[in-house]
Amino acid sequence: MDLTKIKDPEFLKNYSNEDLEDLAKDIREFLISKLSVTGGHLGPNLGVVELSLKLHQLFESPKDKFLWDVGHQAYVHKILTGRADQFDTLRQYKGLCGFPKRSESMHDVWETGHSSTSLSGAMGMAVARDLKGTDENVVAIIGDGALTGGMALEALNHIGHEQTDLIVVLNDNEMSIAPNVGALHNMLGRMRTAGKYQKAKEELEMLIKRIPAFGGRLAATAERVKDSLKYLLVSGMFFEEMGFTYLGPVDGHDLEDLHENMKYAKKTKGPVLVHVITKKGKGYEPAELDAKGTWHGLGPYKMESGEVVKKPGPPGYSAVFANTLKKVARQDKRVVGITAAMPGGTKLDDFAKEFPDRMFDVGIAEQHATTMSAGLATQGLKPVFAVYSTFLQRGYDQLVHDVCRQNLNVFFAIDRSGLVGADGETHQGVFDISYLRHLPNMTIMMPKDENELQHLIYTAVTYDDGPIAIRYPRGNGYGVKMDQDLKQIPIGKWEVLKEGKDVTILTFGTMIPVAMDAAERLEAEGIQAEIVNARSIKPLDEEMLRELAMKNMPVVTLEEHALMGGFGSAVLEYFHDQHFHNMTVDRIGIPDHYIEHGSVSQLWEEIGLTPANVAERVINLVPRKRQRA
Amino acid sequence: MDLTKIKDPEFLKNYSNEDLEDLAKDIREFLISKLSVTGGHLGPNLGVVELSLKLHQLFESPKDKFLWDVGHQAYVHKILTGRADQFDTLRQYKGLCGFPKRSESMHDVWETGHSSTSLSGAMGMAVARDLKGTDENVVAIIGDGALTGGMALEALNHIGHEQTDLIVVLNDNEMSIAPNVGALHNMLGRMRTAGKYQKAKEELEMLIKRIPAFGGRLAATAERVKDSLKYLLVSGMFFEEMGFTYLGPVDGHDLEDLHENMKYAKKTKGPVLVHVITKKGKGYEPAELDAKGTWHGLGPYKMESGEVVKKPGPPGYSAVFANTLKKVARQDKRVVGITAAMPGGTKLDDFAKEFPDRMFDVGIAEQHATTMSAGLATQGLKPVFAVYSTFLQRGYDQLVHDVCRQNLNVFFAIDRSGLVGADGETHQGVFDISYLRHLPNMTIMMPKDENELQHLIYTAVTYDDGPIAIRYPRGNGYGVKMDQDLKQIPIGKWEVLKEGKDVTILTFGTMIPVAMDAAERLEAEGIQAEIVNARSIKPLDEEMLRELAMKNMPVVTLEEHALMGGFGSAVLEYFHDQHFHNMTVDRIGIPDHYIEHGSVSQLWEEIGLTPANVAERVINLVPRKRQRA
Repeated sequence: MDLTKIKDPEFLKNYSNEDLEDLAKDIREFLISKLSVTGGHLGPNLGVVELSLKLHQLFESPKDKFLWDVGHQAYVHKILTGRADQFDTLRQYKGLCGFPKRSESMHDVWETGHSSTSLSGAMGMAVARDLKGTDENVVAIIGDGALTGGMALEALNHIGHEQTDLIVVLNDNEMSIAPNVGALHNMLGRMRTAGKYQKAKEELEMLIKRIPAFGGRLAATAERVKDSLKYLLVSGMFFEEMGFTYLGPVDGHDLEDLHENMKYAKKTKGPVLVHVITKKGKGYEPAELDAKGTWHGLGPYKMESGEVVKKPGPPGYSAVFANTLKKVARQDKRVVGITAAMPGGTKLDDFAKEFPDRMFDVGIAEQHATTMSAGLATQGLKPVFAVYSTFLQRGYDQLVHDVCRQNLNVFFAIDRSGLVGADGETHQGVFDISYLRHLPNMTIMMPKDENELQHLIYTAVTYDDGPIAIRYPRGNGYGVKMDQDLKQIPIGKWEVLKEGKDVTILTFGTMIPVAMDAAERLEAEGIQAEIVNARSIKPLDEEMLRELAMKNMPVVTLEEHALMGGFGSAVLEYFHDQHFHNMTVDRIGIPDHYIEHGSVSQLWEEIGLTPANVAERVINLVPRKRQRA
Repeated sequence: MDLTKIKDPEFLKNYSNEDLEDLAKDIREFLISKLSVTGGHLGPNLGVVELSLKLHQLFESPKDKFLWDVGHQAYVHKILTGRADQFDTLRQYKGLCGFPKRSESMHDVWETGHSSTSLSGAMGMAVARDLKGTDENVVAIIGDGALTGGMALEALNHIGHEQTDLIVVLNDNEMSIAPNVGALHNMLGRMRTAGKYQKAKEELEMLIKRIPAFGGRLAATAERVKDSLKYLLVSGMFFEEMGFTYLGPVDGHDLEDLHENMKYAKKTKGPVLVHVITKKGKGYEPAELDAKGTWHGLGPYKMESGEVVKKPGPPGYSAVFANTLKKVARQDKRVVGITAAMPGGTKLDDFAKEFPDRMFDVGIAEQHATTMSAGLATQGLKPVFAVYSTFLQRGYDQLVHDVCRQNLNVFFAIDRSGLVGADGETHQGVFDISYLRHLPNMTIMMPKDENELQHLIYTAVTYDDGPIAIRYPRGNGYGVKMDQDLKQIPIGKWEVLKEGKDVTILTFGTMIPVAMDAAERLEAEGIQAEIVNARSIKPLDEEMLRELAMKNMPVVTLEEHALMGGFGSAVLEYFHDQHFHNMTVDRIGIPDHYIEHGSVSQLWEEIGLTPANVAERVINLVPRKRQRA
């Protein structure tokens, strides 16, 4: 059928399972074809086609609430709620968001992007329903990886205790983004192999009936019976002990099985967990066979061959990080790599190939990762927690309380700092300076290019005076020449990249080329701009700032980061704390609102992080300064 | 014995259990007597006397590592490691810290204060040991409440997966600070009643042996057998499923039982969990009988009667909060109270008496509490999450991602904002402006006194344009007259408390009396200071700031908060963003290091948050300004 004709999921009510199967086929073809052009989260969505269809058939969205945990698996939901015609714009500037978005549709009742939030959101909605006395269903759909995040476990604990009516659909595909880790994951594995729980319970009851009051002797099969007894009980027991009614495991691609269990879940009182087994990438061979997580989320690919279209280019920052870390770790046995379920994204998987005993993937658990790093550091090791800027937000209290307060030598390799593009507002890494800068003992730096990154990594590993964060952007470097020998970059020292006498632009990282371009434009206006690589964000280069103040040089700060509490604020703080009260300082950065998805260059344009805007801001600043002088 | 003669725990090696029992008695007497003068965490420490003795007897601190979760139960450990002579200074300025402190003793290898961090820290230490090839034991002692914190569950999941050698002592006293909540808590309850696990396993094996291959019919007792089977298996099964060897339950006041199980734990490979049942307040009747958590941590008391010494004084801010919330909730059915295991501290227990269905204690789970609040808000309710400033740090990502990004009407009642005194550096509430201010859509306010607090609470409940945080200090108000009728305080509007023409001091909350006093001192120097109640921290009162700029008035900002990224920085940002580049602004606040314990007034003195220092800073500022003019 023509999916773009779908306005809402109402039509599904009259569909037989056979009709749904046909529709599932159409949806898969649609996704495989559309995403081959736009890129996107193909694997997760191919895995939930039948599940999404059955949920929309048996429940009544938007009266009934669907909360899609993480949310990258909501494409089918988007199609069924009238958005198929927008898939050409998926994850593009002003286009369809890759995650649920309340402004897009009344069927998107909860926005996600980060993992493990859906159970807490669902609990809030269910409690609200009970207080208001209405009768809608609340359904959270969460993956097995997201379930191991601490906040999901906190929610499970609370929901089980309160016995609130809500449905948790555990979408168990044995891997979240990368293959899963953790004891809970192993437990789910045993539950999957243990077969269906209801059947198991029946078998158990049969066995019980055979227990005579006295006598009997251990048969040859007794050990097997005992083991199977244990497994029978363990299936679902964890969730039942947590206060949930457990249903499953359900074959997530069998519409009949889904139908029965979802219907049963709907009429069951109290919290219900439906354990649904799905296959990521289902129906598209290259994605089904994917063991590495390549097809989880990706760019364009060739539909027929499944060949991923690779953009040629210089090495990515993540790759430079991992390569350098390997180099350093060969000399320095203290180095230990940590990731929270992002071995591929951070490239620590590459590090682990050479140092399998010195890399730990802790699962989706940034809090634990941060504090485990602190524990390692107390014993003289050098933990390197490679983490996306936006996900380190989960470890903020652990940064305050465990790492910085104890002043431990933990190295935070903060990947995806700055705007990340297509993933949009939930993933932009534009707050880390603000949430790190006020922490005592913290050092924060950012390289101007991939060559400086390798030196900063060396610097961070060899720095032994407390925690240090090296932030670097998503994507590729510039293809600059890589030095053979690693060297320490002095902390608290900046670098003048271009001299100038009229104005100084203090900037770092990705904004350096923007500033250099702006300087050229200013040249044409007769303004000589000095460009400084302010790579040390905390501490600042106080000597250089003092010199600027002595010259009463107008200063522009330029950063791909929130203006509030960011680098520019630090510069203002310095000048006023040193009683340089008449400095002209203009700050350019990200204004006080969330930045949606789009290409990074489009977003820069929108925000004004462009050479033209920077030049204009300088022109407005400098003459005014001159008039006063 | 004279406990102050103890230098280290070495002497315990030769002690019999009878000797230890005598020592336990001495320690209890010591604690009950000392704490009656200084105050402190009596209940938790009386509960762990035998446990601490046995740990120090069987392990070799500091080679073996003890990590005390939360850490307020480490007094016995402090006595046994040579610090009994310092108990007169407990929690006092420059005195003995109420929590483990690495600078105090080589036996304090891990600092705590916030809950649920010990397992992650222990995992880091154990992994470091294995990488270095040494053989020390790592022992984390964690309460049943702290175990339900998300990060502890993340750690449990990871430790079980890695099968690392370490010992978790679960100190299960059936209540952490307040009586516990959560499904895990219920599970522990069943485990306690299920009796000893080892015995249970034997019984199970007996039963199994009696299962014949075929035949047999359900006896009258079969249902009971089934239930008991289930419970037998459930005892410890949760932890065994997570990959731990489970030992227990152990009577935490029976030295023999402790001895056996700890010895067994020490020689067991892989992760072990020893489930120890203790009684909070053991050996001191008033504390033993405490159901409300009064004896968890308290001020001085009369030793004989157990009567808590009450300081007379005006109503505390928490009480004003709870009373006002009740008043508002009577009119506004949307109001729902949320606490993360702090019903007493936040006084939401008082709210719950009147509105039992509209208050939720979610356990130690600030992440879940924050996002559950977001869920409630999506459905038009008005969640009020009452939380200490320092603990809301755990919900930072949830603030960024769930509350502020979705721009939901959640009211954060931020208690214990500012310095908290005796609890010290892990509990100071001095970062919340820095971690909240850069979040888009957030509003932050602070009242000048308890009367303004009630109006701000009304303001926050009736505010429907996004999240709002009202921060208020620990302790009592000033005894000001309380208005009968609640009113809205305009957001983004400040109040001139005292007019002046030479300098303006922008301040809020607890610093207002300091500024008023400073103004009097300045009066004597012929300087007229204007004092402004800058109660709206975000948004600022831009109109007033503009007027100050037009007059080119020197400005001093004064805040009981970190200087980096705090209120003063916001003022600097405003002036420069509006191109008022020649404003003289001096910021007074908390410098860039952690502030240890002591009375709040001592800490103010140390930092310079005093009338004398403020006056001096102004005097240094204003003449300079005049010379220029």
